[in-house]
Amino acid sequence: MTELLKSTPRTDGFYMPAEWRRHARTWMLWPQRPDNWRLEAGPAQKAFAAVAKAISRFEPLTMGANPRQVRNARSMLPQDVRVVDLPSNDAWMRDCGPTFVVNGQGEVRLVNWRFNAWGGLYQDWSLDEVVPLKVAELEGLDYYNAPLILEGGSIHVDGEGTLLTTEQCLLNKNRNPGLRRAEIEDYLRQYTGVEKILWLGEGVYNDETDGHVDNLTCFLHPGLVALTWTDDHNDPQYPISKDAYDRLKRFTDAKGRSLEVLKIHQPDPVLITAEEAAGVLSVEETRSRNAGDRMAASYINFYFCNGGAVVPTFDDPLDALAIETLQKFLPERKVFGVPGREILLGGGNIHCITQQQPTGQEE
Amino acid sequence: MTELLKSTPRTDGFYMPAEWRRHARTWMLWPQRPDNWRLEAGPAQKAFAAVAKAISRFEPLTMGANPRQVRNARSMLPQDVRVVDLPSNDAWMRDCGPTFVVNGQGEVRLVNWRFNAWGGLYQDWSLDEVVPLKVAELEGLDYYNAPLILEGGSIHVDGEGTLLTTEQCLLNKNRNPGLRRAEIEDYLRQYTGVEKILWLGEGVYNDETDGHVDNLTCFLHPGLVALTWTDDHNDPQYPISKDAYDRLKRFTDAKGRSLEVLKIHQPDPVLITAEEAAGVLSVEETRSRNAGDRMAASYINFYFCNGGAVVPTFDDPLDALAIETLQKFLPERKVFGVPGREILLGGGNIHCITQQQPTGQEE
Repeated sequence: MTELLKSTPRTDGFYMPAEWRRHARTWMLWPQRPDNWRLEAGPAQKAFAAVAKAISRFEPLTMGANPRQVRNARSMLPQDVRVVDLPSNDAWMRDCGPTFVVNGQGEVRLVNWRFNAWGGLYQDWSLDEVVPLKVAELEGLDYYNAPLILEGGSIHVDGEGTLLTTEQCLLNKNRNPGLRRAEIEDYLRQYTGVEKILWLGEGVYNDETDGHVDNLTCFLHPGLVALTWTDDHNDPQYPISKDAYDRLKRFTDAKGRSLEVLKIHQPDPVLITAEEAAGVLSVEETRSRNAGDRMAASYINFYFCNGGAVVPTFDDPLDALAIETLQKFLPERKVFGVPGREILLGGGNIHCITQQQPTGQEE
Repeated sequence: MTELLKSTPRTDGFYMPAEWRRHARTWMLWPQRPDNWRLEAGPAQKAFAAVAKAISRFEPLTMGANPRQVRNARSMLPQDVRVVDLPSNDAWMRDCGPTFVVNGQGEVRLVNWRFNAWGGLYQDWSLDEVVPLKVAELEGLDYYNAPLILEGGSIHVDGEGTLLTTEQCLLNKNRNPGLRRAEIEDYLRQYTGVEKILWLGEGVYNDETDGHVDNLTCFLHPGLVALTWTDDHNDPQYPISKDAYDRLKRFTDAKGRSLEVLKIHQPDPVLITAEEAAGVLSVEETRSRNAGDRMAASYINFYFCNGGAVVPTFDDPLDALAIETLQKFLPERKVFGVPGREILLGGGNIHCITQQQPTGQEE
């Protein structure tokens, strides 16, 4: 039922659809590692459960959990969430999970990218690495092995031939040091089916993923891009967002359109508290969490689900503005917030912990 | 998606269909425990893989494996077998797995029986116990918790209201000591939807399951029962089979039919060799395997799959006779043998390591 295909999605007529296209289900992983999630991941599990609960009101959701966590996950999740044994090292389904591709004729396959834990943020990624194959087995889908180290959060597509990414991540020497930009572009075309790659520079300030695009900017629909923003010229985020804005305004997409850019004001700086830092088990080979460090908080790290959009909130007056602005430009869906701080403490946010499995159907 | 139902299958119009009804898939578990399977389960894994391969030619098959064994299982199984993480203590899907029930209107649910490792053949059955719930999650099926300790191998149904079982097992004080025969019958009616329970006495000689019916006798179709047999009056199996024969000839089924009984001659006694016994890790709380012990070899422990029937063979001239006889009475399907000795060394055979998931469709 599950076959490794030696061709590429592009040659077989498959492509990665936009995230807003209809989903068959959302995939998530249950957090548990005490050297990344404080207090043995208890608060993070509550935060993930709230995200899962929110999404499961809109579409089916499968939560993969490590064997020892399955009962715990089951007890903390709504009954209509499917909980399956799916061992992982950490819990970032966006990044270690598969990218699903479709052919417009009802078929769905998946791309199994190579993975190295964001250039080695922790040392053992042997379980994360095989998550896509386990998803393929569970769903009975054929798959492609892409010869490129890539996390799902480092690319966004508009579903009409355009891909957004950042130089900071995809050209980072800790990912694919042997590959030049043109070779990486060629792999992206082969494995996502896009025509045109738009390169931004850096990602959000202090983003430990080396600047994943999904925290900085995303498509709202073809031709319209949302960008995290600040008007404070003294904020280290300012030059990053400004550069991204300038590039976006210069780009045209695969269809020749200029891009509209919607600025979404970032929350006020979110710093790790001493209490939060103290709750993380210190392990030498894992990135440390230090009190006072600024986290890469961004509303852009939201997730489309069928009929909805789930936006991380930070107990910040700007939360409401972000939701309101996105709602205005996404009138056909319900935009709403779910607290994101505990997820951010682990190094990402709602988009990073979810992965959409599209239906094969055209809409 | 998966809900615990507080009613019973019977009150909801659900019943356990006959094994020969069309399957959606077969479920199996991958063997690994070194205190039951010799040489760290290497030979058993080959034997299970051969069974899976044979069945997968006829219908989809899912192999559940412990996390550390998934790669090994994947590498030893045909590509069209689905391999999923499904932790278990041992590998007897028939016995620790669910019983699927249907309502004749396309719906499938499952029964989660209580489980105590055959009255305590080993001490920790915490993983085996939750296998049915994991299957329910994986398939998104609603389920019933039956308040009865029961292994799937201890019952056979004809799909038309009749259930076969043995007193040795279901009335054993190591299973449901607080329940009388009439109470057990009532539970069987509630959870399998049958009308009439036919009680045989003992199971096959030396069967460590306390006489599971699925090693002794089974339905070939309503009104026709196959029975393991010997004409040797000095064989300890003789009085057991004779008693079963006599009872079967006295019974009428739920539809009022007398039963035809087809005798299937047992293989010559199969004894554990010294080499085989030596390969099993000795652990105090697990049943030991001793050289010279006679195993409960029986051709009755075969499995129906879509268009086929997989019969254990023992390198015995009687293998061919058993297959030929079954083929004669099952002309609409392909009856064929797969070596069963390595499975038998673990305490059961092909029927014990498989579990059918029926389609919801009437045929």
